Amino acid sequence: MTRVGVVGATGYAGAELVRILAGHPDVDITTLISRQYAGHRFADIYPSMAGVVDLRCDPLSLDHLTDRTDVVFTALPHKIPMSIVPELVAAGKKVVDLSADFRFKNASTYERYYEPHTASNLLEKAVYGLSEIYADEIRRALIIGNPGCYPTSLLLPLIPLVRNKLLQPDTIIADAKSGVSGAGRSLSLTSHYCEVEASFKAYKVAEHRHNPEMEEILSREAGISVEFTFVPHLVPMSRGMLTTIYVTVEDGVGIEQIRATLKGFYAASPFIRLCAAERTPDTRDVRGSNYCDIGIRMDTRTNRLILISAIDNLVKGAAGQAVQNMNIMLGLDETAGLTTVPYPV
Amino acid sequence: MTRVGVVGATGYAGAELVRILAGHPDVDITTLISRQYAGHRFADIYPSMAGVVDLRCDPLSLDHLTDRTDVVFTALPHKIPMSIVPELVAAGKKVVDLSADFRFKNASTYERYYEPHTASNLLEKAVYGLSEIYADEIRRALIIGNPGCYPTSLLLPLIPLVRNKLLQPDTIIADAKSGVSGAGRSLSLTSHYCEVEASFKAYKVAEHRHNPEMEEILSREAGISVEFTFVPHLVPMSRGMLTTIYVTVEDGVGIEQIRATLKGFYAASPFIRLCAAERTPDTRDVRGSNYCDIGIRMDTRTNRLILISAIDNLVKGAAGQAVQNMNIMLGLDETAGLTTVPYPV
Amino acid sequence: MTRVGVVGATGYAGAELVRILAGHPDVDITTLISRQYAGHRFADIYPSMAGVVDLRCDPLSLDHLTDRTDVVFTALPHKIPMSIVPELVAAGKKVVDLSADFRFKNASTYERYYEPHTASNLLEKAVYGLSEIYADEIRRALIIGNPGCYPTSLLLPLIPLVRNKLLQPDTIIADAKSGVSGAGRSLSLTSHYCEVEASFKAYKVAEHRHNPEMEEILSREAGISVEFTFVPHLVPMSRGMLTTIYVTVEDGVGIEQIRATLKGFYAASPFIRLCAAERTPDTRDVRGSNYCDIGIRMDTRTNRLILISAIDNLVKGAAGQAVQNMNIMLGLDETAGLTTVPYPV
Amino acid sequence: MTRVGVVGATGYAGAELVRILAGHPDVDITTLISRQYAGHRFADIYPSMAGVVDLRCDPLSLDHLTDRTDVVFTALPHKIPMSIVPELVAAGKKVVDLSADFRFKNASTYERYYEPHTASNLLEKAVYGLSEIYADEIRRALIIGNPGCYPTSLLLPLIPLVRNKLLQPDTIIADAKSGVSGAGRSLSLTSHYCEVEASFKAYKVAEHRHNPEMEEILSREAGISVEFTFVPHLVPMSRGMLTTIYVTVEDGVGIEQIRATLKGFYAASPFIRLCAAERTPDTRDVRGSNYCDIGIRMDTRTNRLILISAIDNLVKGAAGQAVQNMNIMLGLDETAGLTTVPYPV
Repeated sequence: MTRVGVVGATGYAGAELVRILAGHPDVDITTLISRQYAGHRFADIYPSMAGVVDLRCDPLSLDHLTDRTDVVFTALPHKIPMSIVPELVAAGKKVVDLSADFRFKNASTYERYYEPHTASNLLEKAVYGLSEIYADEIRRALIIGNPGCYPTSLLLPLIPLVRNKLLQPDTIIADAKSGVSGAGRSLSLTSHYCEVEASFKAYKVAEHRHNPEMEEILSREAGISVEFTFVPHLVPMSRGMLTTIYVTVEDGVGIEQIRATLKGFYAASPFIRLCAAERTPDTRDVRGSNYCDIGIRMDTRTNRLILISAIDNLVKGAAGQAVQNMNIMLGLDETAGLTTVPYPV
Repeated sequence: MTRVGVVGATGYAGAELVRILAGHPDVDITTLISRQYAGHRFADIYPSMAGVVDLRCDPLSLDHLTDRTDVVFTALPHKIPMSIVPELVAAGKKVVDLSADFRFKNASTYERYYEPHTASNLLEKAVYGLSEIYADEIRRALIIGNPGCYPTSLLLPLIPLVRNKLLQPDTIIADAKSGVSGAGRSLSLTSHYCEVEASFKAYKVAEHRHNPEMEEILSREAGISVEFTFVPHLVPMSRGMLTTIYVTVEDGVGIEQIRATLKGFYAASPFIRLCAAERTPDTRDVRGSNYCDIGIRMDTRTNRLILISAIDNLVKGAAGQAVQNMNIMLGLDETAGLTTVPYPV
Repeated sequence: MTRVGVVGATGYAGAELVRILAGHPDVDITTLISRQYAGHRFADIYPSMAGVVDLRCDPLSLDHLTDRTDVVFTALPHKIPMSIVPELVAAGKKVVDLSADFRFKNASTYERYYEPHTASNLLEKAVYGLSEIYADEIRRALIIGNPGCYPTSLLLPLIPLVRNKLLQPDTIIADAKSGVSGAGRSLSLTSHYCEVEASFKAYKVAEHRHNPEMEEILSREAGISVEFTFVPHLVPMSRGMLTTIYVTVEDGVGIEQIRATLKGFYAASPFIRLCAAERTPDTRDVRGSNYCDIGIRMDTRTNRLILISAIDNLVKGAAGQAVQNMNIMLGLDETAGLTTVPYPV
Repeated sequence: MTRVGVVGATGYAGAELVRILAGHPDVDITTLISRQYAGHRFADIYPSMAGVVDLRCDPLSLDHLTDRTDVVFTALPHKIPMSIVPELVAAGKKVVDLSADFRFKNASTYERYYEPHTASNLLEKAVYGLSEIYADEIRRALIIGNPGCYPTSLLLPLIPLVRNKLLQPDTIIADAKSGVSGAGRSLSLTSHYCEVEASFKAYKVAEHRHNPEMEEILSREAGISVEFTFVPHLVPMSRGMLTTIYVTVEDGVGIEQIRATLKGFYAASPFIRLCAAERTPDTRDVRGSNYCDIGIRMDTRTNRLILISAIDNLVKGAAGQAVQNMNIMLGLDETAGLTTVPYPV
């Protein structure tokens, strides 16, 4: 059994990691780190896991961590991971980091949107953990920069088509909708129940906070610099993300070619489900699971392709993909621990 | 007091009409027509209005209707109104119809998307009831074709800009999100609670069912034929509609000109609220009211304008605008009966 | 026009007061006090009221308050009102206090559950503002101790029956369910969206925090000391409170006598709606309104009466009843400003 | 591998059975029967299971069923199972029936509340499938009458205490709250989204529809005839059931004895979780799982015990307990296929 630890175990992404890892057949959770709840039983913070997880939260100690783990998941706010990860890597641990700290090849991009990077020498060793796209690099990686939920929902339908030059990248508009758990467990009016119920709204409209991660990857895949319009919205529900992408196809490209390209590309990907022609995805159908459902439509009058993807932002958009990446790194079955069947309702 | 009747009073749009008219200072509700609930007390169907509305539902009888009313609201499925309205108009009644039957100037457009029109001779007497835009024609109208909720949410932010030639109309993409009440009170799996909770999805993607109404008006306003991409989504909440519109501006047009144009256009419109620069609309803020809140943003890198509108689909998107149109037809204060202050939460 | 001020205007009860008072025909809101948001425009905090309320929040200053108001509503945490109210009363203002500070006749009861009372000399001048029950005293009062939402929902169905000796008071069990807005706008995990969605739970089970207010009144009405079991629960919705009361009737008392007693008692009370025999109340039917709907059932096998009441916790359970009390104090129509018709859905 | 079939696979309880059985390590689903969707792919009805369940729905044919299965689950409306089960039993199949048809020892009780029983000769061979209580009988049973969700939530906390004579059974009052999925997938206004959102209400108050099943068992366990008061309520959420039970303890019984009795009784029961003293259950913590969480409180002033149980009505209250019963019948690990870890949020 591989020994795993979760740093930042009591945030929502961390707790979701614990849920998934607790049911994983090939790993043992050996330590859960939580600054805020050090000393508390994890199951007192998350009673849903009483009887399943019987650990107390530990304060962060790198010695303790390196002693007890083979793989470490860091589910922490940006900036903190880069102060921890170098030591973990030096001690021979494999690391999956869920923050933005190791997502960029280029430190200067990170620094423009976040802050000075104190471990930029590790960036070239880190692999962007979009599992279905970069499995080969992930297999050999020591550090995974686990993708954000918005980038995951956007890149999975787009990359196969961009690689095949079927789209005009500068026409991309992405209208994304996320459940509230994406904002985490930290208290804020934005996540206060009475402010969310019956509320649907956009936020950070065209503020580009989420763009650089997506644009770095899209540009790499397209071979040209890509800029696009991205507007996130907040949906009154806990989990789930649906992204509707509008993009003009290259001349002569039809919906059948689009469908065939995606079908071929994802033929061996157990977590990608292409919707039948008459259907489009529903966040409810992926809730709690690592699936990404993709729907494909064409507005023939305007020659615009409409791609719709649905993921659970906490699973394929965070903890689930992190475990999938660990599976790939360890040479395990890619689906190990990730076979939760989504509820029918 | 003006005597008003509501035909189709027990559907959601009908019941919302009753709620609003019951609090209107200048009208008396004299008859509520409901095929399904004829003979039942209205307040037994909608106990929220016990003690407020003390009428029984009547079966449809045109004699009865013309005897008792000065103004008739028809809140019925498409096709039924065109069999009733001619007689009402002949009897000198003013009619506000909430279906699609009287929204088109051109019977052939209606017939392409709906069915044969049996009262097409009345279409030229009917006025499209987008209150803020067509108040002058509404004032003199006998029949109002009350706009749909999607068209209302889309046209209010766009028309002032299209009229002023600030936009490139063929670049319009509208990503709309609606609460479930838009699907009405008729039972269907789509509106079954367990199928809606935690579910966010698109529907009728690029199927153009909603386009002709919007495109007829946009084309008229632009002076050229306009086609655009429209994708509606379903939000897990009862009321509320938010539409996010992406459109490329004409060369040299900046956000300040956009803002000034909308501000000037709606300076005397009590129900249009332009959001302050740093804000965008929230469906919660208009819930139960006749407001349309509009947010304006520019993605400067791609030169795309982003317009966001929020309405309550049952009020400004149906019953509220219908009453506003009646007020205009009768020469009353435009806001009479429509002063509900939206709940803070 | 009566000049009114709201102290604590940006909490949920305060904002609801603003919503109601903004639509009240006989009052002018002259000042809104908010420590946290002093200097901010109220409509920036609650954009739902943009275009309706055009005031900035003021910091608390008693001179300012007494200069500008005839009536003051204090919607503040317990303990703060008793430091403000004495000066307001001395300046001749009428005060409606929404905290517990002026609800008890007996300072020692208050002090047992809360803390030392620094204005206990005013308690005998204060009237418990259960409008339908104590209207005569309210008419002459200078200070209203506005009831809590739980006591309102419990006492309205019980008092007429207790006064008439139809019940065995020591058998009362009340199982209450409240929407989340009762916990206010202060941030806490309890009100964090993801912790509330799909969550139904009891809280403060039999901890008696809410009991003293209810028991003081019930004991007074029964003429004997009454203790009962009270368990509150949290419902995943913003507004609404439903209380299910189980109580054994005195020998020989039947449901018809119960019904007739309540009907007679509330014959002239516009906000009390007794449900028809076959119906029981639904929180949705009172949402946003000052109604209290009451259902009456008898479990004939066990001789237990089941009373069910539904209120909107922010309206009849707080701000609405406060305005009703003001209306009574000022000799206005009891329903002035409180005629919101609840939404059909 | 044991071959299992589900009759009524496309209702909510049926679909939940499919979800659980699809992840069960020791069974193969060999046939899914659905009258309404015969011929359709199951995953087209429930897209959440695309890629997991690859079967078409079959019409009901007893030959087909007996050919392909070792164990049959019948998830059908009352009355239909009794026309199918006799033939299945005759063919040597083990049957778990989720309707009321095989829950009563006494046909006359069934017939008083339901209708003539056409297979009453089988009632003595059927075992009431409350897994933790009747495991010994279940082990040897051919037919399981799987308990309803309300009875499960009520009986699990009560039976150990009633057996030990710690309670006064005639004082029991149970105030139950259920998510909407309990009403099933059949369309009705009660489950229409807009009628449920923001709605909390009681239904079938003291109408005793749910009582006979609970009272037959309680009376058997108490050794005396027990009648009690039961009021179910509807919560605006899909899944989850919380039952609050009020009961007077026998003289001298304290909360520690209650707690110790339950703790001892359920020491070897993996699905029963007693809450720590300071906690009470939350439906969210059991969502999707087969757990029953139980909280224990005493109102010392009135000597009333308050027991609170939380289950997922579709799992421990239906499909999960059905699989647990199958596991017991087949001599498998009781938890096989039932190890879903509930989501943290």
